[in-house]
Formats: sequence, C-alpha cells, structure tokens
Amino acid sequence: MDLQVSFLDRLFDAGLLIETGVDGLYGRSGQFEDVIAAFERLIDKVGGADGAEAMRFPPGMNRAFFETSGYMKSFPQLAGTVHSFCGNELDHMSLLKCMEVGDEDWTKGQEATDIVLTPAACYPLYPTVARRGNLPAGGGLFDLQSYCFRHEPSKDPARQQLFRMREYVCMGTEQHVTDFRQLWMDRGVEMMKSVGLDVTIDIANDPFFGRAGKMLVNNQRDQNLKFELLIPITSVAQPTACMSFNYHQDSFGLKWGLNLEDGSVAHTACVGFGLERIALALFHTHGLDVKEWPEHVRATLWG
Amino acid sequence: MDLQVSFLDRLFDAGLLIETGVDGLYGRSGQFEDVIAAFERLIDKVGGADGAEAMRFPPGMNRAFFETSGYMKSFPQLAGTVHSFCGNELDHMSLLKCMEVGDEDWTKGQEATDIVLTPAACYPLYPTVARRGNLPAGGGLFDLQSYCFRHEPSKDPARQQLFRMREYVCMGTEQHVTDFRQLWMDRGVEMMKSVGLDVTIDIANDPFFGRAGKMLVNNQRDQNLKFELLIPITSVAQPTACMSFNYHQDSFGLKWGLNLEDGSVAHTACVGFGLERIALALFHTHGLDVKEWPEHVRATLWG
Repeated sequence: MDLQVSFLDRLFDAGLLIETGVDGLYGRSGQFEDVIAAFERLIDKVGGADGAEAMRFPPGMNRAFFETSGYMKSFPQLAGTVHSFCGNELDHMSLLKCMEVGDEDWTKGQEATDIVLTPAACYPLYPTVARRGNLPAGGGLFDLQSYCFRHEPSKDPARQQLFRMREYVCMGTEQHVTDFRQLWMDRGVEMMKSVGLDVTIDIANDPFFGRAGKMLVNNQRDQNLKFELLIPITSVAQPTACMSFNYHQDSFGLKWGLNLEDGSVAHTACVGFGLERIALALFHTHGLDVKEWPEHVRATLWG
Repeated sequence: MDLQVSFLDRLFDAGLLIETGVDGLYGRSGQFEDVIAAFERLIDKVGGADGAEAMRFPPGMNRAFFETSGYMKSFPQLAGTVHSFCGNELDHMSLLKCMEVGDEDWTKGQEATDIVLTPAACYPLYPTVARRGNLPAGGGLFDLQSYCFRHEPSKDPARQQLFRMREYVCMGTEQHVTDFRQLWMDRGVEMMKSVGLDVTIDIANDPFFGRAGKMLVNNQRDQNLKFELLIPITSVAQPTACMSFNYHQDSFGLKWGLNLEDGSVAHTACVGFGLERIALALFHTHGLDVKEWPEHVRATLWG
C-alpha cells in the first residue's frame, strides 16, 4: 500500500497524472496520453491483419442491456448508474435550497436514466451483434475501446474508477474462440517483451461479490475460463493484471441469442488490454521520463 | 424533426452510427471515428504552435467541484450523477429479488458516488489550475478533450447524450482572452471552409433552466458572451452549433480563485468543438461514403 501511494505521488509530481480530489479519478497529461496512443498503435499493428470490425461505444450503455447482462448479480458494488434531475421549476427551487443549506443529501431526488456506465468495453457489443441475426460463416471478430467505470476508490494508481479498456472479442465455435484466446496470450507476452516489460501469465478470477460469489470464483478457476497477464507495478509479489483472456463458453451466446451461421449457439471469448495499467507498467519499469526509456522500447512504440 | 429521424436512420443503415436502444446513445463505426481523428489532427495543426498544455480528463469529475460550479443552478435537467450499490450481502439479496420481480424500481437503492459525468470538457480544468497557485506571466492556455454527458434524449443525431468535446481554454487579462476568442472564431470559419462546410457565426445563449433562466439568457446575449459557429445538418433554417466561443469575464476566475501573476483575478474564455457534430456535418454535406468526398476535403483531412 505504501508503494502504491508513493508511486501515485511520484506520478502527480511528474505531472503524468493529475489529482482531482477523488481517489481513482485522475486527469492525464499529454505525455501519458501519448504513451497510451503509441501502445494502441502497437495493438493495431499486431492485430490489424485479423480484419476485426472496429466499433467504439461511448462510456455509457443502455441500462436494459446492463440489467440483462447480470452484472448486478456478480459485481453490484462496482456498477455506476447515471441519474438526473427530472423535476419542474418548483422542484428545482427546493433542490437549490437543499444544496445551499447542505443538511440533506441533494442527490436523493435524482432519478435513474436509461444509461449505466460501461463496466467493460465489450458489454454493449453482444446485444448489438445479436440484433444483426446469425453470424456470418467464420464467426465474428470485433475491436473495441472505451472508458469503463468501476466503483472501487483506491490510492493504487493501477486501480482507477474511470479507465480505458481495449478489447478484441471473438464469436464462433469452441475451437475457434479458444484458439483466438491462445493466440492473444502468445501475442500479449511477445508484445510486452517488445516494450521491455517482465510478464507472467496466470489463471485468474473475477471479483464476484459476497459469499455466494466464492462458488463462482471456484467454478471459473476450475474450468480455466480466465487468464491474466501480470506485470509488476507497485509490487513484485503481487503483480498487476494488465491483460485478461476470457472464455465465456456459450453463456453469452445463450444470454444474448448469438448464433452461428448454422443456427448453433456461438461460443465467445474476449481479450482485454488495461491501457492505463500498461502505461503505468512502462513508467514504473523504465522511469517517469519517456526520453530516458531504452532505445529499443522507444523504437517499438514510436519508431 | 422528420429530417432528423431520416438522417439518423441513414446513419444507422450505413453503419456509421450503431443503435443501442436509447435515443442519443450510439456506437460509432471505425469509419466515423477515423473522421473524428482526422478532424482532431486538423485542430492540432491549426492550434499546435500556440503551445497549449494538453490535459485529458476522464468522462467523470469530482462531484464537489461540480457542485461548486453552479451547474445545478443553470442546467439541472442535463446533469448526470453516478450512483452505486453500497450495501451488504443481505441488501444484495433484496436487490436481486427486486430486479427479478420487477414491480419496484431497483435503482432507488443506489447511492450517489463522488463522481458526476463531465458536462463540458473544461469543467475539471478550473479547480486543477487554481490548485497550482497564481498563473505564470502570459496567463494559461489549455487543450482538453473528453466525452461529455447531457441528459437530453433526442432522435436528432446531432444531439447525443454522450458526445466528445475538444476545447481550448485561455486564462489571462480581458484583452488577452477576448483576443484568443476572436482568433479562434476566425480560425474556426477558415477550418470549416477548408473541409467544404458552409458556416455562419451568430450570437448565442446557453439553455438555462426555467423562467429564472430567461434573465440569464438575456444577460448572456446582451453582453455578447457566447457565439456559435453554425452548420446546416438536418435543417438549413436551423443550422447546428458545431463550435462555441465563450467569454466568462472574471466569473470563473472569482469562483475558482484563478489569479494572474500580479494577483489580479483572471478572465477566462473557452472555444469548444463538438466533434460528433462536425463529423455529422461532413457526412451530411459530402455524403455517407467518405471515398466519394471532394478531393480537396479528403486532402485536408488525410493528406
């Protein structure tokens, strides 16, 4: 924890991250963004020939789809619903009085809108693809990126409440999507090595809520459904997940009605890059001054 | 209104925007994003030599700063507060039962977090700069971009709930910041002409809420505080604001404690580009197939 705070303070001092007064909510400098843009170009280069369809969703999604996803069953503590004032002029006067006096919580009167913050870049994709009808022969491959929200305030710079995730999502047969996942595990290790980062890959699980969640954790681990690519950022003993590789079996196919050309239920897999975490791993490993980074790393990113 | 719906449908059919089931919330195709990226490079080219400090804030901001900004006084209907589940395992079981039965609104139990969706790209900037102490000699110039939220569901593709705004913000003396604003009005007209768009500039006002807001509208217009650059998208009679040019006098300086090198209160001005609106103006004017756009427009954007 001390190392997390001290790395965060160094990032603030260097101006790479910008304090906002809320833990896990930071501005980024132009230099920080430049590193993320460079790493995204590297992703494009490695994945570009696969012919994925690029889609970019905003940082919020349709609440009805979010509800269908079952996110509130598994990760209720992380979600962020968006609420607005829906009153008339009289309500507005009461609201302003409430804010001025400050003895009551003015946000109590806010009403939920149709929008929920996107918890992972691929969430809006599945209902979008389902709407198109059966997948074409060869399945589907999609390229996504968005800001994502998770309500977990922390002083660990690698655990932000609003952060960007780049993802590829594959839909097809079990063999097809597990091959895709393995391909990106191999590519991920190579990519991180090419920018001078030490990596390990390990089996992993999602942070399912509560005691009931423990069973889901065990199930996920027993079936090898999730792997993570780990890089030391603020701890060598507990390196940080900078990529994840997830096989959903046919669960998303069944939930969203995703079918292959022959009408059978699609299997799906996704690989995600935590873009801020990768940038932080680079700054942690090579130093806060990008000009001082090893020449081969600079050449890979900006060459 | 019919023309708005028909343009939106054409954008869906061409795959440039992607339906999500919520009015004003759309995915973007790779092609749509490519147009926005190209226009942002044009902005970089025009503004680059000015030496603005780039900062990129996420799509949410500190709620305390949002409250200080006074946004809920002027535009309560547009704001989006972010709420989360903060209960224990028993609360979670009730929540899931509530969602399953569906007779009560499950979002009632969500509690406001410290985060509010950013209403305009420059909102997080002012408290950030104030924290640094007095501005240096010559004032301050900042380059911002973020997704912004406004709760105004609409079938007009140019009125989205989540959209990107690129901004330059200038802090200095009255003369300095009004010169900055005039410079960007001239540049804005030239830029739009260079990509084949018909523009007019007109005096404008913000959508202040309620009857009391009418006074604020009149005041803003009488003092020439806001101008907009307008381009026809779904109506020639009512062209759409694609840029805005705002002079805040010393109101933000006083509110946030922004002072010049000599300790006097800073005046501020900002110019904003509505990136989705500009892309839509390009698609509306030159057609939905980018390959068919006039050669000089393509050369300006991708040359």
